[in-house]
Amino acid sequence: MKQFKIAVIAGDGIGPEVINEGIKVLKKVAELDSGFQLDFTYFPWGCEFYAENGRMMDDDGIDKLKAFDAIYLGAVGFPGVPDHISLWELLLKIRKSFDQYVNIRPVTLLKGAHLPLVDVKREDIDMLFIRENSEGEYSGAGDWLFKGQEHEVVLQNGVFSRKGTERIIRYAFETAKKEGRSLTSISKANALNYSMVFWDQVFEEVSREYPEVETASYLVDAAAMLMIKDPKRFEVVVTSNLFGDILTDLGAALAGGIGLAAGANINPEREFPSMFEPIHGSAPDIAGKGIGNPLASIWSASQMLDFFGYESHGKIVLDAIEQLLLEDRVLTPDMHGTASTSEVGDRVAEIIESII
Amino acid sequence: MKQFKIAVIAGDGIGPEVINEGIKVLKKVAELDSGFQLDFTYFPWGCEFYAENGRMMDDDGIDKLKAFDAIYLGAVGFPGVPDHISLWELLLKIRKSFDQYVNIRPVTLLKGAHLPLVDVKREDIDMLFIRENSEGEYSGAGDWLFKGQEHEVVLQNGVFSRKGTERIIRYAFETAKKEGRSLTSISKANALNYSMVFWDQVFEEVSREYPEVETASYLVDAAAMLMIKDPKRFEVVVTSNLFGDILTDLGAALAGGIGLAAGANINPEREFPSMFEPIHGSAPDIAGKGIGNPLASIWSASQMLDFFGYESHGKIVLDAIEQLLLEDRVLTPDMHGTASTSEVGDRVAEIIESII
Ligand SMILES: CC(C)[C@H](C(=O)O)[C@@H](O)C(=O)O
Ligand SMILES: CC(C)[C@H](C(=O)O)[C@@H](O)C(=O)O
Repeated sequence: MKQFKIAVIAGDGIGPEVINEGIKVLKKVAELDSGFQLDFTYFPWGCEFYAENGRMMDDDGIDKLKAFDAIYLGAVGFPGVPDHISLWELLLKIRKSFDQYVNIRPVTLLKGAHLPLVDVKREDIDMLFIRENSEGEYSGAGDWLFKGQEHEVVLQNGVFSRKGTERIIRYAFETAKKEGRSLTSISKANALNYSMVFWDQVFEEVSREYPEVETASYLVDAAAMLMIKDPKRFEVVVTSNLFGDILTDLGAALAGGIGLAAGANINPEREFPSMFEPIHGSAPDIAGKGIGNPLASIWSASQMLDFFGYESHGKIVLDAIEQLLLEDRVLTPDMHGTASTSEVGDRVAEIIESII
Repeated sequence: MKQFKIAVIAGDGIGPEVINEGIKVLKKVAELDSGFQLDFTYFPWGCEFYAENGRMMDDDGIDKLKAFDAIYLGAVGFPGVPDHISLWELLLKIRKSFDQYVNIRPVTLLKGAHLPLVDVKREDIDMLFIRENSEGEYSGAGDWLFKGQEHEVVLQNGVFSRKGTERIIRYAFETAKKEGRSLTSISKANALNYSMVFWDQVFEEVSREYPEVETASYLVDAAAMLMIKDPKRFEVVVTSNLFGDILTDLGAALAGGIGLAAGANINPEREFPSMFEPIHGSAPDIAGKGIGNPLASIWSASQMLDFFGYESHGKIVLDAIEQLLLEDRVLTPDMHGTASTSEVGDRVAEIIESII
């Protein structure tokens, strides 16, 4: 029997609450299928851990995680710990240490989810974002000079390597080719006169290897507008780390809300574990109340099943979410329901049981 | 009689068509008021000029413009001239040379303009963006190393000076204070670990000088989502050059479309001329057809009147646009009308005549 080892970092705020429901669903899927087994190991890392130990994870945390097939992450960040610490020493550290250079974020309006736009048809919101996830604007390079003086100046340096840029664009072309969909590149060469000129050039070069894939290219500002005005233009989308961050949150607002937005941080070579997470934050304002929406976590659990090669199981989980939205309507307050976090998870598990 | 000298750079594509209508409107306002006079001087700069002369403007172009009170710009960019040339040597060159460090962009849904969101009330879309316009991500600093080799690497360096950061934030506080509205800062300190940590610090420092101004602070990704989900949170907004670029285009999609989005590039010290422009591009696909929407140009003409100290005249122009949208409905095809560019301008001028 195939066995997958999953490291669980439930993290801060609503992280533990929503991740529990994802685990509930994963266990249900494994229970109903005799072909594979999932083992969960829990790591208590995050801001509470930081408050006690002065660090976000064990010193040898990265080493410990190496042994796992996947990492399942809740949310990181809590008032009292500056974001640039909590994230650089946990979430971003994992993404970088494990060279999870592909961030896959579906921006698809599921049936039954709320369409917030007047002029757009619901099936028009069906995009797959492939975000660069290891470098670019997030490389962490910079400097802070003449602190406190009149000529104080702060540098933030984007670093775009040939290797990093080429591999994400190639991954996106492979995805578009496999799915038989068009590929859109989003950049900003008219203002970012080094990095984005380079990005466009690499996109152009790689596109020549994929004559069968239809391509388009937009400036990030125009893309932000067009995602609202005419989202059906976008099918598979490839973009930089920062632009992907902004546009997938914008996408979440179109595709049912942040409570439904999942992300997979993939190391395609499988040299290191990949990580699956809801893209929402720790939501300190509602933490502990048992009303956090677990659907994004559950969707990311579905992405994990896909990644393990159990795509049909991943699809069952997604179908269950869709049925919940369309028929059962057992939903948390952010989706205008009255259910608790665990009631939503229970219901999804029941639906899965009825489907399998 | 007060006299203002305006340099007109109509530019490329639909630039000349839409700018003509703005001038028509400005002339009408001046004609109906005996208190001031507007003189227009035309400069043929842009991509056509580049094709003939190998440069986007005269070598002493910046010097020539210095003598003017304002610059009225149409649009820059055309297929055949790479954007990073056409813009860095004209639009961005002017913004930087004249230290137009404030970019004011209203994101207000005028009465009669189309509301694209289901869950939002039209009066909730009423934001004023104050975008940093002279440095930050647009400083043009960077490097391109090991070209064509496997270890090729491209750097794009954001430069945030104390002076540049403080003055834009202070300008925004002054604006919010004058208008009696809240001020929201948009940044991204959790990922951009130098520049945006600095930005947040300066915002915090300057806010202490304005205890009467209510403040909020959002991450740029969350802001992109919330502008769609709950735009009424945002009143006056201050943000960096790149984030302002992206979010004001997003805002345009909410506030009636890019055909209604105007921007003022201001040098508040009035040491150099300020520049007024529609924020849309040159729209090569419809250039020459006489159907470009002139309302953004006309709105930016209204901003110019404000800047000259004729706020009541600026308001009349804006009221005329609102009446056009609400009652006359003489609109170009992008707004589902059948009028030509010049018919729209004529009608706005007539409405102004009827109001004054
Ligand atoms: C928490 C933050 C550092 C992170 C990012 O910006 O990548 C988050 O917004 C995301 O999109 O996963
Ligand atoms: C044309 C381009 C360089 C410019 C910018 O990015 O500032 C434009 O998009 C704008 O917003 O005025």
